[in-house]
Amino acid sequence: MEISIIGASGKIGTAISVLLAKEKYVRHINLISREKSLDKLKGLKLDIYDAIAAEELDVEISVHDEKDLSVVCNSKITIIPAGAPRTGDMTRLDLAKKNAGIVKRYAKDIGKTCDTKLFMITNPVDVMTHKALIESGYDKSQVFGLGTHLDSMRFKVAIAKYFNAHIGDVRTRIIGEHGDSMVPLISSTAIGGIPITRLPEYKDFPYNEVVDFVKNGGKRIIQLKGGSEYGPASAVLNVVRCIANDNKKYLTLSTYLDGELDGIKDVCIGVPVVIGKKGIERIVPIELDEKEFNDFKKSVEIVKRYWNEVKGI
Amino acid sequence: MEISIIGASGKIGTAISVLLAKEKYVRHINLISREKSLDKLKGLKLDIYDAIAAEELDVEISVHDEKDLSVVCNSKITIIPAGAPRTGDMTRLDLAKKNAGIVKRYAKDIGKTCDTKLFMITNPVDVMTHKALIESGYDKSQVFGLGTHLDSMRFKVAIAKYFNAHIGDVRTRIIGEHGDSMVPLISSTAIGGIPITRLPEYKDFPYNEVVDFVKNGGKRIIQLKGGSEYGPASAVLNVVRCIANDNKKYLTLSTYLDGELDGIKDVCIGVPVVIGKKGIERIVPIELDEKEFNDFKKSVEIVKRYWNEVKGI
Amino acid sequence: MEISIIGASGKIGTAISVLLAKEKYVRHINLISREKSLDKLKGLKLDIYDAIAAEELDVEISVHDEKDLSVVCNSKITIIPAGAPRTGDMTRLDLAKKNAGIVKRYAKDIGKTCDTKLFMITNPVDVMTHKALIESGYDKSQVFGLGTHLDSMRFKVAIAKYFNAHIGDVRTRIIGEHGDSMVPLISSTAIGGIPITRLPEYKDFPYNEVVDFVKNGGKRIIQLKGGSEYGPASAVLNVVRCIANDNKKYLTLSTYLDGELDGIKDVCIGVPVVIGKKGIERIVPIELDEKEFNDFKKSVEIVKRYWNEVKGI
Amino acid sequence: MEISIIGASGKIGTAISVLLAKEKYVRHINLISREKSLDKLKGLKLDIYDAIAAEELDVEISVHDEKDLSVVCNSKITIIPAGAPRTGDMTRLDLAKKNAGIVKRYAKDIGKTCDTKLFMITNPVDVMTHKALIESGYDKSQVFGLGTHLDSMRFKVAIAKYFNAHIGDVRTRIIGEHGDSMVPLISSTAIGGIPITRLPEYKDFPYNEVVDFVKNGGKRIIQLKGGSEYGPASAVLNVVRCIANDNKKYLTLSTYLDGELDGIKDVCIGVPVVIGKKGIERIVPIELDEKEFNDFKKSVEIVKRYWNEVKGI
Repeated sequence: MEISIIGASGKIGTAISVLLAKEKYVRHINLISREKSLDKLKGLKLDIYDAIAAEELDVEISVHDEKDLSVVCNSKITIIPAGAPRTGDMTRLDLAKKNAGIVKRYAKDIGKTCDTKLFMITNPVDVMTHKALIESGYDKSQVFGLGTHLDSMRFKVAIAKYFNAHIGDVRTRIIGEHGDSMVPLISSTAIGGIPITRLPEYKDFPYNEVVDFVKNGGKRIIQLKGGSEYGPASAVLNVVRCIANDNKKYLTLSTYLDGELDGIKDVCIGVPVVIGKKGIERIVPIELDEKEFNDFKKSVEIVKRYWNEVKGI
Repeated sequence: MEISIIGASGKIGTAISVLLAKEKYVRHINLISREKSLDKLKGLKLDIYDAIAAEELDVEISVHDEKDLSVVCNSKITIIPAGAPRTGDMTRLDLAKKNAGIVKRYAKDIGKTCDTKLFMITNPVDVMTHKALIESGYDKSQVFGLGTHLDSMRFKVAIAKYFNAHIGDVRTRIIGEHGDSMVPLISSTAIGGIPITRLPEYKDFPYNEVVDFVKNGGKRIIQLKGGSEYGPASAVLNVVRCIANDNKKYLTLSTYLDGELDGIKDVCIGVPVVIGKKGIERIVPIELDEKEFNDFKKSVEIVKRYWNEVKGI
Repeated sequence: MEISIIGASGKIGTAISVLLAKEKYVRHINLISREKSLDKLKGLKLDIYDAIAAEELDVEISVHDEKDLSVVCNSKITIIPAGAPRTGDMTRLDLAKKNAGIVKRYAKDIGKTCDTKLFMITNPVDVMTHKALIESGYDKSQVFGLGTHLDSMRFKVAIAKYFNAHIGDVRTRIIGEHGDSMVPLISSTAIGGIPITRLPEYKDFPYNEVVDFVKNGGKRIIQLKGGSEYGPASAVLNVVRCIANDNKKYLTLSTYLDGELDGIKDVCIGVPVVIGKKGIERIVPIELDEKEFNDFKKSVEIVKRYWNEVKGI
Repeated sequence: MEISIIGASGKIGTAISVLLAKEKYVRHINLISREKSLDKLKGLKLDIYDAIAAEELDVEISVHDEKDLSVVCNSKITIIPAGAPRTGDMTRLDLAKKNAGIVKRYAKDIGKTCDTKLFMITNPVDVMTHKALIESGYDKSQVFGLGTHLDSMRFKVAIAKYFNAHIGDVRTRIIGEHGDSMVPLISSTAIGGIPITRLPEYKDFPYNEVVDFVKNGGKRIIQLKGGSEYGPASAVLNVVRCIANDNKKYLTLSTYLDGELDGIKDVCIGVPVVIGKKGIERIVPIELDEKEFNDFKKSVEIVKRYWNEVKGI
């Protein structure tokens, strides 16, 4: 399988590149960046070649200038972590506006010449996914964003620690905006299939504390070491594997809603989807508790407000 | 890790041996059988060596006569699929009586000289686990049986097919006797953490049909091809991996109850347990629906009745 | 990836089916046999479903009567272990004649309607590969046999044991007929890249004993347990993985020679080939020692003699 | 298995930590650094937890100040990439002197209180390994350095590319100093067991060009992206896996020679060793070509000269 990464020289792009090269089904990776970062990518390519030699894997890596995006045309998936990071004096809206312009150009260029899938990592990811969808002209199954998948992973860590359970036994999900209005679903959280509300330890579960921990996960890592890398990259890998192996797992990704969930329409936001070789294969019409549903509707409103600000860029 | 298999020349013992040899953490396997099957085991050893050469794995395999069971003393786990199969004219009780004698001798011999774990596969597995526990004199964490783990796997297959979900996303469990009185727990069945009762497809779920399919799983395979092999062997592997990697997963195994679940006592039966390097690390005090609990109590009674027949053997 | 196995109900076919189902890249397996073995295959299918549920893998398995071979048309590879086994009173030539008829029908039927690859396991494998090539009308890259790959694995086991080295560090090969005239290549045997002739232990290496051990590998397992299963199946898997992952490894398979090795022509026999997604991608023109080359020419003559007997069938 | 990394906050230390956390046999990692980098390690810990949640692995990570090294006492292996990097105006000898002081303190402290293994990555690695051996007072099997293992991997990449072979089929080794005097062994380089000198493409093999490429591997990556990370970390992983799984592979590591190779004594330098659960299990007395042996002796002299400068520190 061939995969492209636009913005491979950033922290997350680099981590994605390294981890992807160790996946058995990957045969060719295109590392793409602006001209000024091409040397860094050439160094990364050599570093990865050394790494996979040690693992006895055989992958071809090529480095490309983002000026010509036709290199992504053979890629089953084009992962886009490109974009400006949020600096201290920027509001979330400033960031959205800046990155919308970048994403627009990529999605438009690619949509005109290619038939790939666009997997958005750039933040704010929900509106960037929407932007990429509109500008590429692709079918909605082909354009999706990391959404609340990483948040769900963080929730999973917290649940596993609290219940002293194996992380692989925990299944949980957070829906809504990848941002402060995200909605953790206790009603869809189980350990080994057992809803956590049926376990004796649940009665002391510190819900607010755990949700705070999850919501501030990104900020905390930024403060401590300047930004997360391997967590997001591993979450990305999860999605890529499902597509590569046509796994049809339920993951929580940012996707375009067209009424599938209680009539909510015209927004890209994190919801449970079935992901397989065609990308988003369907939305899972999960039944929410009333409070969960109200919180989700609020989150939808917040994302729509952002979208209104950037859709015209 | 060193592992022993007593009764390695039977169908299930052979399949366990082959699959175990492909596990990275396994360094030495003792294949043990009665004298008349030793040639078969010598052939199996050569066949496995060829197989792992192709996989580039390095495992030592040795073949032993069951007369001297001190060979299991370095084994972290001793797996016991040995025993008579059930032939057409045998009742389940006949089988229980016959195998109880075999298990008694093994457990007694091993308990006297060694400190290993006994993992019972021999049927009827719940009472054989109890027998092995008593005769070995081991702590209850060290003696356990495959119980309803394979049944749970079969239930999982059926759930995944019905909901068109990835098998790795489904978590379910069946508790109680590994036999007709087993109790499937819909209340502890989730896909990607979402309780199946919250999915729209649930309203048409053919419960009785699915449970019948699961209950008759073993019989059906016996009719078609003379007995199951790879299913049970893979279920065994799941358990061994948890112990090898100290995974602390929730699996449904046959274990000795001493009041942990609503006061039920003095029976070995399938319940959710946490399994790690010490064996059964704890019993998970899951909350059942009323009907589930009543069915479970009935199942306990049935197993106790068998136990009363074989405990004195 | 979809794969078909014609003759899945035999010992080797069954082992191939089970092991293949555990490979991540496999999505669909067609189990094919004669009508009278279809029940056995239905049981095998259920047994495998249980096994992969335990492993959390998702594979579709279907069972087909060999009467209609159009089911193989979506298979990347069609593996053919079908055929009569050699019974006590049969000469190798008797076997060749009997199986040639079976292979002829399969290859002809498939060649007419499909574009798959034929991977021959049926013995004597070199002439069966030739037969399948002629009758299918396929390109020679698409038709190949297990050849001396399993023999090479057995040689590898013996080398690893003698030098006390990790099996994954040993690389060796046996070329020529999959039969008594096989030619082990000491000159192409290395441990961790170090030719064994450069290791001090080599001076006492019991060449004849080891070669005898390898040549009699199959017979020995037949005597002890009635036939090998997992060794051949694992060797088959090695080849399938190379094709699935387009690995381009050097394996020793039976392939049609058209002058690539010192002008040897018009024979299918075991030689080092590069195997990738297209099947046999090229023959490796290895330099042999004089004795090795002479032995190889003798082996070629022996295979040609068999071929002359069966090519008209 | 518990593992410690002293100097986990540097580029290579970080990459090692991330990759190690994804290994199944790893249960606990101690990240250790100077006080001023502890925040970075706390951030790394959270980032890794997110990453392994996505992979469904369960590892405990703890962060420690290097002031108290007794935390390594439960570690099977203590990996030491700590040390100053080489800046523009430093000679190799300046670097050696600076790092010798750092390594001395670590090795002395640990040697006094613990029984672990010291795996040196700090450069110049050969003399640092020697320093750690002397100061720890450990047996020579317990102290070893990455040596020319990464160089061997780079050579492997170059060989695989030139011969268009799968990287997993190539086995090669470079011995001697991890530095300009390293000695590539063409005589111990094989593809699929076939010595490359027996392949037709060998006659045009650009030896000098390839060796230059390998020797300058590190520098090139420094120029392009400021330093290698994933290559060295993956090479480290190879070694850790061999110890964890008791693999007994032939790797080229820096180890103390005491006459095992043609009487060469009292130097730590890269040679082929068998690595298993005890660390360096034996040195492989490989037969070299005359030129190779002469070059190796020169390399030994160079390393000894450095050692004389730092042994008294």
